[in-house]
Amino acid sequence: MAPASSVAVENLNPKRLQQQLQTQPGSLPFDQILFCNIGNPQSLGQQPVTFFREVLALCDHPCLLEKEETKSLFSADAISRAKQILATIPGRATGAYSHSQGIKGLRDAIAAGITSRDGFPANADDIFITDGASPGVHMMMQLLIRNEKDGILCPIPQYPLYSASIALHGGALVPYYLDEKTGWGLEISDLKKQLEDARSKGIDVRALVVINPGNPTGQVLAEDNQYDIVKFCKNEGLVLLADEVYQENIYVDNKKFNSFKKIARSMGYGEDDLPLVSFQSVSKGYYGECGKRGGYMEITGFSAPVREQIYKVASVNLCSNITGQILASLVMNPPKVGDESYASYKAEKDAILQSLARRAKALEDAFNKLEGISCNKAEGAMYLFPQIHLPQKAIEAAKAAEKAPDAFYALRLLESTGIVVVPGSGFGQVPGTWHIRCTILPQEDKIPAVITRFKAFHEAFMAEYRD
Amino acid sequence: MAPASSVAVENLNPKRLQQQLQTQPGSLPFDQILFCNIGNPQSLGQQPVTFFREVLALCDHPCLLEKEETKSLFSADAISRAKQILATIPGRATGAYSHSQGIKGLRDAIAAGITSRDGFPANADDIFITDGASPGVHMMMQLLIRNEKDGILCPIPQYPLYSASIALHGGALVPYYLDEKTGWGLEISDLKKQLEDARSKGIDVRALVVINPGNPTGQVLAEDNQYDIVKFCKNEGLVLLADEVYQENIYVDNKKFNSFKKIARSMGYGEDDLPLVSFQSVSKGYYGECGKRGGYMEITGFSAPVREQIYKVASVNLCSNITGQILASLVMNPPKVGDESYASYKAEKDAILQSLARRAKALEDAFNKLEGISCNKAEGAMYLFPQIHLPQKAIEAAKAAEKAPDAFYALRLLESTGIVVVPGSGFGQVPGTWHIRCTILPQEDKIPAVITRFKAFHEAFMAEYRD
Repeated sequence: MAPASSVAVENLNPKRLQQQLQTQPGSLPFDQILFCNIGNPQSLGQQPVTFFREVLALCDHPCLLEKEETKSLFSADAISRAKQILATIPGRATGAYSHSQGIKGLRDAIAAGITSRDGFPANADDIFITDGASPGVHMMMQLLIRNEKDGILCPIPQYPLYSASIALHGGALVPYYLDEKTGWGLEISDLKKQLEDARSKGIDVRALVVINPGNPTGQVLAEDNQYDIVKFCKNEGLVLLADEVYQENIYVDNKKFNSFKKIARSMGYGEDDLPLVSFQSVSKGYYGECGKRGGYMEITGFSAPVREQIYKVASVNLCSNITGQILASLVMNPPKVGDESYASYKAEKDAILQSLARRAKALEDAFNKLEGISCNKAEGAMYLFPQIHLPQKAIEAAKAAEKAPDAFYALRLLESTGIVVVPGSGFGQVPGTWHIRCTILPQEDKIPAVITRFKAFHEAFMAEYRD
Repeated sequence: MAPASSVAVENLNPKRLQQQLQTQPGSLPFDQILFCNIGNPQSLGQQPVTFFREVLALCDHPCLLEKEETKSLFSADAISRAKQILATIPGRATGAYSHSQGIKGLRDAIAAGITSRDGFPANADDIFITDGASPGVHMMMQLLIRNEKDGILCPIPQYPLYSASIALHGGALVPYYLDEKTGWGLEISDLKKQLEDARSKGIDVRALVVINPGNPTGQVLAEDNQYDIVKFCKNEGLVLLADEVYQENIYVDNKKFNSFKKIARSMGYGEDDLPLVSFQSVSKGYYGECGKRGGYMEITGFSAPVREQIYKVASVNLCSNITGQILASLVMNPPKVGDESYASYKAEKDAILQSLARRAKALEDAFNKLEGISCNKAEGAMYLFPQIHLPQKAIEAAKAAEKAPDAFYALRLLESTGIVVVPGSGFGQVPGTWHIRCTILPQEDKIPAVITRFKAFHEAFMAEYRD
């Protein structure tokens, strides 16, 4: 591995390197870029779920439903589902603006999906269909943050959408630390301490963000822990912002996803007890339809005037895209036993999730075998967040290169191997610890290459910088 | 016409009335709601353009491209266009996040479309594909407005996206009035006066919004006028924000659409002379694909650091929806002479635009025949904005009902006829004048009913309130 000058490191850019591989093959020490940086499964070869795409195509071009050939091209349940969806859209117009919360019939379907998931009723009026989860998060931040004295409790490490949105809306991020030693556990005692700390500084803490399953940390919250979180929010009068976009991505047998609404309702908390927002997205799950920009937020426990304000903000951009709206209704109501597509749908879904579980395990094991790396299990989501115990000499080299140590490590990794990861400093971490976020998304046949190259790099890096 | 109490007027809601018509037929003095309030063509029965939807369906479900039956279901050029589009998308993945500005190949296509429209080159790097025009407008306002002393010159009357976005971002709307007498002309002298006025109050005026063709006013700017506007922006150091979403909607022979970029370039102004943003949307035009949330902004004349900031803001929500991105590339590159779809595409397009022109003329003529109504021509866009010269007695009745006089008129119109229009006060107007905005979008066979009912209402209203 050739040592890089700080200038070379500065200019590293995966897209440019990819171009260089095309225009000057053999000019780099690797033959392809391995993107492990973004939760974007279909960009890495994951195929869309057939049933969902059949329905989308039929809704995009409803004339197909009148043609005989369509019956041999599409499954019977995709055809009937498309007809059912079009029947709920006024004038069957998939090219019309909808209600700003989304098409009522699709919200009904989403509410039915939530009800069947949780065993507690959901209401179409509580659903706001959005272009992915991000616009929902921004809407809530816009409403919760009045000035720089309004605070939002956010996990550290956290998906930086939250820090960015809080900054954009001029509020204060109140951090709480996930405990790496207990598998990124969420300690109520730390939450309480951070809350009191912030309050003593005059911050009006208005909401708690919980990401479950975790991003970038991949943990799945235990049920008990969720009860405590709900109680904490209720006692402290906080809005609970539950990022539940990875609800379908669970890879271990001893954990399951529970929505915070299910937890709250099973504790006997109703509408009046807890303002709760659950974010869901079609970008994640086994479907990974990032480009369709679909998602929703389910809001419960807010007063009528506040709901009206949420509606007003949702109305500013008219409505979310109808393709994404339809897809959000589909992922919450996939084919059922007895439907023509069920077997193939189930096979596609299981293949994706089982493969992701194998990839997560293989990468976790590989990281844990390396000197100075410790990596928690990816119980869910799409990421591993290994800690890199960097030698002092590496930290000093990073300083000389004017880089955060984990960014320095990630850039060296990229230039030697073509593997792209995100430095932990992008998500926040306990000061003095260093991490990288590595997705489990490269196709399974590429995982051995990721592991081999990573191992070779890391061993050379340690040999170079070991104290 | 039964006079309404102010309470009844307060509670009028078109959606509720529509439900009432279904659940209690015959309970209202009309048998259907005629929506003339929103620029949402497909909600009123306009059919999507076949070619566009064929391509979208194929891109949503690319497996179709491998099936023999597809050749009999889709036109050959839709098939080849879909293949061409998929080839420009890395991994053919229409379900992956794209570059935050949009897929490069689609931006190339949009740039080619602009180049052929204007006769001046456009560049894919200047294109930001967005979920409709609104997010582009918000992005620019977010960047232009630093505090309440930053001002944006906006036409009055104006599509209220601008006032809403300026308010959301905490800036100052600096109004300039369109001159109703000259067909909603834009007087440079008024612009100058308003600019100087604002500056004398310490407002840092940063940009000028021009909507061409106009919303709600339907005028198409004359070329000379556009030259003067460009010169004005250049001299005063203003960013020109050109809302050009109605560029395909022109209904008169003596006017044509010229993009501000074409005007600026033909004056010899290049990149360094004028920061200019052009907004375009798939929601308008003859295609009217509001629900697809596609559009773009073309930004030219900004420095590299500013462009970087625009890119950063665009990145916060990852990317716009891929279906909308594809559609934006299609509307800027429709079928050409020689393509299999060309004849049917041309016929669909012409039928829609010619019908819209007839509807505009019929409504304009009808308005102008009524006592106390004067209505400018809809040269373009989708609206008429007639002035209602309300009798003093009506203004007093409105005051008693705690309504703006034009809102009072619009509500009375709704309860008597089921016709929904937007009061002029929603767009701003010269104080003491009253207008309504009426779309030209009801299907052509419904226009006579709109006219007959409107006439009957207006005559009864005048009989009741004539001074």
